[in-house]
Amino acid sequence: MKITRPTLIIDEVKARKNIAFMAEKAKKSNLLFRPHFKTHQSATVARWFREMGVNHIAVSSLAMAHYFYQHGWDDIHIAFPYNLLEHQKLNELATHIKLTVSIESQQALTHLKSHMKTPIHYMIKTDVGYGRTGIDASNWESILSLADQRNSICQFSGLMAHAGHTYDAHGTDEIEKAHKTSLQKLELLVNRFIDPPFVSYGDTPSCSVSENFNLISEFRCGNFVYYDLTQVAIGSCTVDQIAVAMACPIVAEHYDRNEVVIYGGAVHFSKDFVMSPHKHFGQIVTFNQNGWAVLEGVYLNKISQEHGIIHLPKNVDKNQFSLGHIIGILPVHSCLTSDLMMGQETLSGQPIDKMMRI
Amino acid sequence: MKITRPTLIIDEVKARKNIAFMAEKAKKSNLLFRPHFKTHQSATVARWFREMGVNHIAVSSLAMAHYFYQHGWDDIHIAFPYNLLEHQKLNELATHIKLTVSIESQQALTHLKSHMKTPIHYMIKTDVGYGRTGIDASNWESILSLADQRNSICQFSGLMAHAGHTYDAHGTDEIEKAHKTSLQKLELLVNRFIDPPFVSYGDTPSCSVSENFNLISEFRCGNFVYYDLTQVAIGSCTVDQIAVAMACPIVAEHYDRNEVVIYGGAVHFSKDFVMSPHKHFGQIVTFNQNGWAVLEGVYLNKISQEHGIIHLPKNVDKNQFSLGHIIGILPVHSCLTSDLMMGQETLSGQPIDKMMRI
Repeated sequence: MKITRPTLIIDEVKARKNIAFMAEKAKKSNLLFRPHFKTHQSATVARWFREMGVNHIAVSSLAMAHYFYQHGWDDIHIAFPYNLLEHQKLNELATHIKLTVSIESQQALTHLKSHMKTPIHYMIKTDVGYGRTGIDASNWESILSLADQRNSICQFSGLMAHAGHTYDAHGTDEIEKAHKTSLQKLELLVNRFIDPPFVSYGDTPSCSVSENFNLISEFRCGNFVYYDLTQVAIGSCTVDQIAVAMACPIVAEHYDRNEVVIYGGAVHFSKDFVMSPHKHFGQIVTFNQNGWAVLEGVYLNKISQEHGIIHLPKNVDKNQFSLGHIIGILPVHSCLTSDLMMGQETLSGQPIDKMMRI
Repeated sequence: MKITRPTLIIDEVKARKNIAFMAEKAKKSNLLFRPHFKTHQSATVARWFREMGVNHIAVSSLAMAHYFYQHGWDDIHIAFPYNLLEHQKLNELATHIKLTVSIESQQALTHLKSHMKTPIHYMIKTDVGYGRTGIDASNWESILSLADQRNSICQFSGLMAHAGHTYDAHGTDEIEKAHKTSLQKLELLVNRFIDPPFVSYGDTPSCSVSENFNLISEFRCGNFVYYDLTQVAIGSCTVDQIAVAMACPIVAEHYDRNEVVIYGGAVHFSKDFVMSPHKHFGQIVTFNQNGWAVLEGVYLNKISQEHGIIHLPKNVDKNQFSLGHIIGILPVHSCLTSDLMMGQETLSGQPIDKMMRI
């Protein structure tokens, strides 16, 4: 490894396996697969999806839609509430590709209809229990009314839902339970339509674990491409499925207090943590010829802007943690870590193209 | 305001006032002022410091040192443990400017001495109670030994300390108490030197609040340029001194549950929070002709990747929170927020140059 500073390492084999798993699951359930690209934000990783037959994608901002348009993607859903203030750029992008926006109020739809000059698609964001945003699924009158206002410019493409409350789950039973209540809410809503609407759905826990996607037309999950320790804690995946590890140099030894300091902090990892088995910011791995191996019981315990503090169990081989060595850290939240890191490469050192911040 | 997406707004008048306050305090105490530029990472803001007579700076990475070298700064201290793996780039940069690195072990100094071909300065990082990194100040034998190993290439420039445990303080009395214990540790160490060493010191709470800088030669604080809600909670500043606010569009109204959704989440704010008066991720302000005004009792209560949820008190004027409006958010941790944001401008719309991620 020629790494000298914090660098996000992607295990291409694992990432491709994660993509194949979800693509096959979608196919088996007769669903369209529209992966969310907010996790990787990478034209390189996008190609791996393309090679698995993916042509439709979701993103979380207009800027991200523009980046992927520039890399040849021509069917993009901006899965974030329509931002009235960006209508000019939206019009511009819609002249080039099939663009879908998310609508969740009469005011937003009225604005869209009066400002769009180029055909655009809209999906109605419905809240199936997460409580973040979207029209409550029980408010079918509002939803039906918005669906009925399609015209030649603004075309209704269906409903979208994100069962984000699966993120509170501990284990597959609780994921299934949250997913089931979401489907029940969706069912009551869908039954109000004369023609069953297209339904886009996609939190990583539900899509990873459940086999029941009745009513659903499309998978829109994203995190699964890399997974992370949060998904392990929820029960969506195993540690072995995590496809990213941050490589960080050891910059100070404090063996007297069973700690070492890494070059790697909040500006690389963000500040999400998990509580399993206790509060920490990442699990430590060592890199080897095959990728990496988990070091049981070794965690990133504290982070400040650029410093990370690793706690070492007393029996650990300290040679792996000596000054100037590179250690790996499985991230707590791969979406935020990947968002932060411009320096990304595969295990074999191939650079990963990453969207620039604008 | 022509803002259409999350944008970090800098009140230049307040930032310049914060810079002047700290520059004058350093002068009054007969200290060198070497502000830490990790907070703003901006050549534009750096010019404001220059206009206040600043010529010496600290940064937290070699990449940041390189950015400021490119913008005309020629006396830079990388206030982060010497990273053995970056010695080549360090050598290269040291041929252009006066560069200082931080050393905290025999192994690191030996490495530096055997790898540097260009004169470089080193300071010894000593731990005065924070417990993050550095040689414990009571371990004077190790520190004196490292100081004595100067040669014509590696020149000893003094001691450096960061009393980061002031960040646990609630109020000025607790800041003074943590600061005082740090000075006591420093005093015992400094007394071991035959010639009193130069001492670099600089957490924002101590530098903001205390008037006692006996033994200290240099201020190295950074956050004060913008301050933030964390510093308000600690007792370092008032809300009026905060010089940055994030401008975010409202993208969804949920008045029925006293909430609105903004375009602004963890990729803009990072995930630090404060617990005062309850857990939240930012305090809400409205922009006006003079800058912004705090809306009492209105907070950013939850954040996910791009969404932020603002809780509204029942009596608040909802017109300020309607779809398409721009609202401001005082950040919890301005260093992380500024690090994340490429889109930055002053209140009058002048762009702020910001270091790119590499």
